[in-house]
Amino acid sequence: MDTRQFTGALKPGRIKITDPFWKGYLDLVKNHVIPYQWEALNDRIPDAEPSYCMHNFLVAAGRKQGKFCGMVFQDSDFAKWIEAVGFVLMWDRDPELEKTADEAIDVVCAAQQPDGYMDTYYIINGLEKRWTNLMDNHELYILGHMIEAAVAYYEATGKDKLLKAVIRCVDHVDSVFGPEPEKKKGYPGHEVIEMALVRLYDVTGDEKHLRLAKYFIDQRGQSPLYFPEECEKNGNTCRWADGPHGFGYYQADRPVREQTVAQGHAVRAVYLYSGMADVARKTGDQELMAACERLWDNIAERQLYITGAIGATEYGEAFTYDYDLPNDTVYGETCASIGLMFFARRMLEAAPKSKYADVMERALYNGVISGMSLDGTKFFYVNPLEAVPVASEKDQLRRHVKIERQKWFGCACCPPNAARLLASIGSYAYTVNEGAVYQHLFIGGEVEHTVGGTKVAIAVETNYPWEGNVSVTFSPEQPVSFAYAVRIPGWCAKADIRLNGQAAPHTLVDGYTVLEREWQQGDTLEINMEMPVRVVQANPRVREDIGKVAVCRGPMVYCIEQVDNGADLHLVKLGANPAFETTFAEDLLGGVVTLTSRSQAVDTEGWGVDTLYRQDTGEALVPKTLKWIPYYAWSNRGAGEMLVWVRR
Amino acid sequence: MDTRQFTGALKPGRIKITDPFWKGYLDLVKNHVIPYQWEALNDRIPDAEPSYCMHNFLVAAGRKQGKFCGMVFQDSDFAKWIEAVGFVLMWDRDPELEKTADEAIDVVCAAQQPDGYMDTYYIINGLEKRWTNLMDNHELYILGHMIEAAVAYYEATGKDKLLKAVIRCVDHVDSVFGPEPEKKKGYPGHEVIEMALVRLYDVTGDEKHLRLAKYFIDQRGQSPLYFPEECEKNGNTCRWADGPHGFGYYQADRPVREQTVAQGHAVRAVYLYSGMADVARKTGDQELMAACERLWDNIAERQLYITGAIGATEYGEAFTYDYDLPNDTVYGETCASIGLMFFARRMLEAAPKSKYADVMERALYNGVISGMSLDGTKFFYVNPLEAVPVASEKDQLRRHVKIERQKWFGCACCPPNAARLLASIGSYAYTVNEGAVYQHLFIGGEVEHTVGGTKVAIAVETNYPWEGNVSVTFSPEQPVSFAYAVRIPGWCAKADIRLNGQAAPHTLVDGYTVLEREWQQGDTLEINMEMPVRVVQANPRVREDIGKVAVCRGPMVYCIEQVDNGADLHLVKLGANPAFETTFAEDLLGGVVTLTSRSQAVDTEGWGVDTLYRQDTGEALVPKTLKWIPYYAWSNRGAGEMLVWVRR
Repeated sequence: MDTRQFTGALKPGRIKITDPFWKGYLDLVKNHVIPYQWEALNDRIPDAEPSYCMHNFLVAAGRKQGKFCGMVFQDSDFAKWIEAVGFVLMWDRDPELEKTADEAIDVVCAAQQPDGYMDTYYIINGLEKRWTNLMDNHELYILGHMIEAAVAYYEATGKDKLLKAVIRCVDHVDSVFGPEPEKKKGYPGHEVIEMALVRLYDVTGDEKHLRLAKYFIDQRGQSPLYFPEECEKNGNTCRWADGPHGFGYYQADRPVREQTVAQGHAVRAVYLYSGMADVARKTGDQELMAACERLWDNIAERQLYITGAIGATEYGEAFTYDYDLPNDTVYGETCASIGLMFFARRMLEAAPKSKYADVMERALYNGVISGMSLDGTKFFYVNPLEAVPVASEKDQLRRHVKIERQKWFGCACCPPNAARLLASIGSYAYTVNEGAVYQHLFIGGEVEHTVGGTKVAIAVETNYPWEGNVSVTFSPEQPVSFAYAVRIPGWCAKADIRLNGQAAPHTLVDGYTVLEREWQQGDTLEINMEMPVRVVQANPRVREDIGKVAVCRGPMVYCIEQVDNGADLHLVKLGANPAFETTFAEDLLGGVVTLTSRSQAVDTEGWGVDTLYRQDTGEALVPKTLKWIPYYAWSNRGAGEMLVWVRR
Repeated sequence: MDTRQFTGALKPGRIKITDPFWKGYLDLVKNHVIPYQWEALNDRIPDAEPSYCMHNFLVAAGRKQGKFCGMVFQDSDFAKWIEAVGFVLMWDRDPELEKTADEAIDVVCAAQQPDGYMDTYYIINGLEKRWTNLMDNHELYILGHMIEAAVAYYEATGKDKLLKAVIRCVDHVDSVFGPEPEKKKGYPGHEVIEMALVRLYDVTGDEKHLRLAKYFIDQRGQSPLYFPEECEKNGNTCRWADGPHGFGYYQADRPVREQTVAQGHAVRAVYLYSGMADVARKTGDQELMAACERLWDNIAERQLYITGAIGATEYGEAFTYDYDLPNDTVYGETCASIGLMFFARRMLEAAPKSKYADVMERALYNGVISGMSLDGTKFFYVNPLEAVPVASEKDQLRRHVKIERQKWFGCACCPPNAARLLASIGSYAYTVNEGAVYQHLFIGGEVEHTVGGTKVAIAVETNYPWEGNVSVTFSPEQPVSFAYAVRIPGWCAKADIRLNGQAAPHTLVDGYTVLEREWQQGDTLEINMEMPVRVVQANPRVREDIGKVAVCRGPMVYCIEQVDNGADLHLVKLGANPAFETTFAEDLLGGVVTLTSRSQAVDTEGWGVDTLYRQDTGEALVPKTLKWIPYYAWSNRGAGEMLVWVRR
């Protein structure tokens, strides 16, 4: 049996998370983020920019007088919220939350047009203009999120009102777009519908849904390019056309199979690549999968921050070029790191290789959860690796780098995206098939799996990411054979694998330790990963990190903050013998492992504030003890400097 | 006698430059730049953006049909050109050039309105709107340059047609602006008229001209702010209002006497400060001079690149904040460094302190002449200290950093500004008064000076900046007493001063070695400045230069270029024992001193292109011989990387 093919991610409802690290996030999402976001969607957050999201649906449904307000893609906030609700209901069916969602869905469905069309911007402003500005007006993007929401809500509750609505809308879209001569040859300006249609196909089994996904992917970037022609018809211009991105901003400057370098808007890019991976896997399209692998490798090997952030520039929130990873002017959007997790999971579903899961873990524990404050009420769009308050205030190039998380955004993609990701986090931890279970992430909880009709409960206990010990206990209804594969993370130099207390025979395949056997009730697999503090360097081709190192432990990247270490963090040097001390600080930042190092700082004594340049006398160094905290937890104690990469 | 007060710069016509370094520039300006720019002003340069400058004057004069074209301040290009022509004619009276200039002046004066108004934009587009958008429409800026042109041309030729025209225009301006209740309380959005009016006052002796200069300076930034009120009347907005600059972009957010930090558009700033210094000196205004000193110190001590560039950001071509000196995203406009020289000369006129001349020299030999190609046909606006072609191509934050100089710009301030600066370079070398001559720069040539009616010829011989020996020979008509003061540059650790071959009694005052004596025919003063290669470090408060050094020799900052040293210059380390070798390369870049150093580079061997991060193993270094060239001469041998600050 080849256990490596045709795996799928575990559905969020199949894992009950009890993990001390993640349970907190799940509770936060359910009890704070989702209710808060519902208030936000209804413009009831004091002192925050209104969303107008539900307002627009009410107007479109004829239940309220008014104009369309907010961003053209505002509908998608509802969709992401419903999707998060769906995920929550999978593991905690809450009638009150469900009632709120049902009522919201009623409004949304009431706005749907007789022909299936759903976008409130055009319903309110005039349907005659719909589908004429695919490049910028997000109609297919919104539908993509609506599909994802509908599927999640259906899977959680069995209720198909929204699902039926989106299927009708997809039918309409299918009548507008396609290879037939009378149809438009367009594709979305912001991708997401590609992976959404595959998710819909998984539920409906309707080949039309998969075919439409494939159409949007294969049509993208074909000559003659659709967007310039659309611009010409509209008499508008593409704001990116004359810049370094061009139509590559939309990943639409050439066919996707010819794309070798991740380019353009980072969220759009990884959403597209996720859809490509889905379609490639479902259709067995080797060429398309090869394109995914090339694009993955380009990101992971040349355009990925150590925190799992992607998107080196604020201009277009975009990729720039290989090895260009500035720490201070970075964009590193929370949504882009979330999208990278989407892409990673799909690559894992196609082929379980730890290189995908390593990146997924890197993003999750660093650049994704850094996007949300520890109390779940504030959010970063941008996740810098160096922050200096005066620069964010006075330097236009860094004004997008906020020093403190913001309540809510007019363009509010990140908060609901974080919510839906966290609410479904279990589905990133495992891919499963009939013959095997792959464990990619170490999240404590109870997993329910079925092998050849035999139910197997798998209980995972761990204090990850603070400790490297993971215990997995198997409880099959009856002894049953399958392969259990556990990722040995790239960060881990030494792992001890024991089965029922004994050194276990196992093989290491593509970064996974695979135990294929007949599992008995009570079998316990222990993975003990050594988790020392690691000092990491970047490829010297990365100009911005030359001569610098980052401090990591387990999956966590660490940083230093002004609140612990004073200002002018650029003066710091790690020192040759940092002699790290590791402490679990229960009362700090919700409980984190902190580090201290015996380090150094350049002495500014002897340098007046009035001399800029002088004969070099070398650097005068003074000892300095540094306190390090996990990167994701920065900026939870007020405004100040933060730094990840320090000089060696 | 206090020799330090009431000095003035030497007029360009009083120094005949023979210096091998500068004579080349003067010939270039006269024989290539000025003719080329005349062609440019007349839109006769193939493949270059049209200027429309003379076109607009012809249309405004009724001699041509057409619309106003080009930038709103296009007239000023004519003015800068005429000013440069005036300076050239002071040292080389060329009848043909004068004829061209006279004919151009005829056109410009024919466009003047009966009430004295001169700006072609409003003459062509409708005078009823004049003086309604001081913030952005540059009317007073253009007049400022016209005044400077008229004065230079009058001083060179004795012809006063343009001078009379600008005096009539100033009369008109004086009827529009002023403290009287019926007059507008405005001031220019782009300063220059302040220093121009003082220059006019020097020629006319008309107190009105000085008073108007003082008015514009003192009114600037008074409450209520003029520009927001103007915007309200016009129904327009200030594009800087919501950014980090605000009205500080125009140095107009508070009264100039309350300004302590150089802010906003760098060219505007140093033009203003130059005018402030002029008015302070002429009126004996100690408070205003104190403001100039504060602003000078802020620039020189906290906002100045080692190349004499100013303006850390492209956003507003502006200052940002203290010690913010990024090398790669810098603006460092050629015109701003030229303006810094204006400011420096005026501070020297007020008080001869070498700190002013040191900065003036730093700017001149590095950030100013870097703006022009060695053949005088191409120009940089932006003068980076780090250039990487792929970054300039693909990173929006660095797209303004051109790797190769451009032919001519639609907004063409820098080329004519460089021309007028170089054509008048002698006037930066000396300030004089009845009792003293201060030599600030080392430029070979014959200086003509008069002390108490006695003419003194002073002959300076030197091969500066390549050698540190300067010989000064005095030829008074009869023996005459005065003080001769020579700057000992800040870069010079050891200078030997000899008079007629003997160690000379002298005092060092504010950085000048002062010899006060009765000078005889044939007296020779020799200043021998040791000129070793210097390794320089920046104040550690400069985040971007931490751990780095720059290589200098004499006044010159050096850089490394890809053409000599290969790509990936960020891998370079100077090394602990660079063992510099110095060579005068006669055939390279017009003849420059080059350096070689025994240095190092980080080895990328062992680093695949496919690994971004790994456990730190330190840096593997390989020996690398670096070849250094003077910074100003970079980018004269094709496109490639360039770097000034290298790791230690």
